[in-house]
Amino acid sequence: MTEGFGEIAERLAGVARGFHGRGWLLGTSGNLSAVVQREPFRLAMSPSGVDKGELTPEQVLLIEENARIVSAHDGKPSDESLLHIRIVKERGAGAVLHTHSIWNTILSDLHESEGGVTIEGYEMLKGLHGVRTHDHTEWLPIIENSQDMPALADAVGKTLSEHQDAHGFLLRRHGLYSWGDTLAHAKRHIEILEFLLETMGRTSLIRGA
Amino acid sequence: MTEGFGEIAERLAGVARGFHGRGWLLGTSGNLSAVVQREPFRLAMSPSGVDKGELTPEQVLLIEENARIVSAHDGKPSDESLLHIRIVKERGAGAVLHTHSIWNTILSDLHESEGGVTIEGYEMLKGLHGVRTHDHTEWLPIIENSQDMPALADAVGKTLSEHQDAHGFLLRRHGLYSWGDTLAHAKRHIEILEFLLETMGRTSLIRGA
Amino acid sequence: MTEGFGEIAERLAGVARGFHGRGWLLGTSGNLSAVVQREPFRLAMSPSGVDKGELTPEQVLLIEENARIVSAHDGKPSDESLLHIRIVKERGAGAVLHTHSIWNTILSDLHESEGGVTIEGYEMLKGLHGVRTHDHTEWLPIIENSQDMPALADAVGKTLSEHQDAHGFLLRRHGLYSWGDTLAHAKRHIEILEFLLETMGRTSLIRGA
Amino acid sequence: MTEGFGEIAERLAGVARGFHGRGWLLGTSGNLSAVVQREPFRLAMSPSGVDKGELTPEQVLLIEENARIVSAHDGKPSDESLLHIRIVKERGAGAVLHTHSIWNTILSDLHESEGGVTIEGYEMLKGLHGVRTHDHTEWLPIIENSQDMPALADAVGKTLSEHQDAHGFLLRRHGLYSWGDTLAHAKRHIEILEFLLETMGRTSLIRGA
Repeated sequence: MTEGFGEIAERLAGVARGFHGRGWLLGTSGNLSAVVQREPFRLAMSPSGVDKGELTPEQVLLIEENARIVSAHDGKPSDESLLHIRIVKERGAGAVLHTHSIWNTILSDLHESEGGVTIEGYEMLKGLHGVRTHDHTEWLPIIENSQDMPALADAVGKTLSEHQDAHGFLLRRHGLYSWGDTLAHAKRHIEILEFLLETMGRTSLIRGA
Repeated sequence: MTEGFGEIAERLAGVARGFHGRGWLLGTSGNLSAVVQREPFRLAMSPSGVDKGELTPEQVLLIEENARIVSAHDGKPSDESLLHIRIVKERGAGAVLHTHSIWNTILSDLHESEGGVTIEGYEMLKGLHGVRTHDHTEWLPIIENSQDMPALADAVGKTLSEHQDAHGFLLRRHGLYSWGDTLAHAKRHIEILEFLLETMGRTSLIRGA
Repeated sequence: MTEGFGEIAERLAGVARGFHGRGWLLGTSGNLSAVVQREPFRLAMSPSGVDKGELTPEQVLLIEENARIVSAHDGKPSDESLLHIRIVKERGAGAVLHTHSIWNTILSDLHESEGGVTIEGYEMLKGLHGVRTHDHTEWLPIIENSQDMPALADAVGKTLSEHQDAHGFLLRRHGLYSWGDTLAHAKRHIEILEFLLETMGRTSLIRGA
Repeated sequence: MTEGFGEIAERLAGVARGFHGRGWLLGTSGNLSAVVQREPFRLAMSPSGVDKGELTPEQVLLIEENARIVSAHDGKPSDESLLHIRIVKERGAGAVLHTHSIWNTILSDLHESEGGVTIEGYEMLKGLHGVRTHDHTEWLPIIENSQDMPALADAVGKTLSEHQDAHGFLLRRHGLYSWGDTLAHAKRHIEILEFLLETMGRTSLIRGA
């Protein structure tokens, strides 16, 4: 039933350690998931409150559609599991990654009044699924942060419907979500969006915000 | 009597090497401690003047309440051992970590006239013990730096009493102290506070100080 | 015929992983090549769309003059293979490296109206092939980005002819190309140019752009 | 005669790889030395033009007072060997390290008209040999860069005489030199000075230069 879970857990743990090294998952922040199977729905999910720099495959949880744990773990799934599940459902994603980087935190706040960040004209955009040219405009919506997870999941669902082309979104003063067909694609998307947010943040420092 | 010291020393050394890699313990700066037992009081403490990037478990000292070494070491405990001991006593902490990062040094100076740094509205704050929402205001007191360790320990004690909710404090142009119930919690707190100080420092660059 | 390909592939993969660690090849961006033999022409080339942080020697392609794959790979050579081949031909280079760093992206845009970046007076310039003193002026041309690879290859060829002394060039909002007689020289050139671009970018932040 | 050379070479190579990782020795820049014996004079010295990220103990040269190689190497000692030897002689140093970091390059230029950088009031200063309090003023002289090595060695000698208390100096738009009784002390000094230069550079960004 959950064939492949071990291998997926191992790869999730590897991505977690790498992103922690880059400072994108400090202080047990952030979370990572990958679909193990769709019917019945099974998601490999990083547990809540663990150091992502030391995440082991054994700690990775297997959860079902309602975020309940089906693997033999005492751990607690992240409160944000509902967001992961919603994204998987809305986008048909195979993996969802959520990072807390310094630059995504800053830009999620700076561009709040515009409701999102416009990224355009960068070659790096071509790494986003379906984008074939640097002459592309990516709209990264910003959603107000909240501790009411069902409400936040609904806000995320609404944003995803309204912005069918978005490859990610920001939670204000919180972090970045992105996803992909596979874990490798989701990792690529996060790296690209983190790169572009830092590039834009640093450019605004030079040119004036 | 000091059962568990070896394992604690190993974990302290691991945290030291990781933080040195991030540039938070350069040039033998900073120090780390973890409680081995409370009665009689025994604290595992990084020695003075060693390269934290190469700290080995064997170098970790075992000290008692008055900062005297009880392990078989020629090393010298850090002058700041008194601060660690005071924090352990005042907060019931299981571990205390002290980092010298570029951003904590800068912010400890920039906000000196206000007597501390206000950090609020960031999701990352939820990683601090007892904080349940981003809608939290953390006050990180700044204490004037001094080489008179007993006097500084008293200043620290006073600050801890006055700011019962603080998860850390800054010594001006010196560094950050944070702590936790366990070494893992203290590490988490340092990572979170370092992240938030850098985020605030970089934001003030964009918005104007 | 392709003697040495295995060893070259191994070294290319090592450079790729190192540069990915520095954040210069995030999100499958960038590409790397090294000449295996000149007659008939054989180039070891990183494949398109792979994570450079996990590039293995086995994934490295062997391509010929027209960018067709001659090794037994299903992979697809990077669209930018044509640029690599052009540089090898025009410069007699033994290796070509292309990075997407935050600072090269920023400076390729900031200096666009000048058509290039002037770098002068830095000791680091001495590491560029044939440069014997810091009292050197390096002109790093900026070429407008394009998805029309044959046209872009022609623009690159034209720029290389016009600027015979250039050790690299920038594609606007895209990245840096540099090369060298050997892979080690090309790596050195990239490190130097990345260093100098970041130094200039940060200096302009302090002095005003 | 050269007992201990192997072990010293190994430690030099380790420091080189670590500093390269931090971006302080990119592109074959920088050099490192440690005294093997004083009578007759023997200095372990990194060779010219090698990638410091891959420096092996076997590549480390043994040179004599006039910078001639006495070990069985085809390599060429760095042009800057004369500076290392001068510093060892003038200061009685056991090791000399020279880094090219982005921040030391920037500050060596920004403060050129003042003839040096004043660093004061930082706890980190206490890590410099003989400094017992943060309430210390360190003067880091800036020497104009030159390719005339004997002349530059004389300028260095003059600066060292005039500033007996200095723990390092900057070559303008070139890099930082520091030293210590042992390699560990020299490494500590470099880490401290790099930290303080970056802290001051970033502070001036926030406060205005």
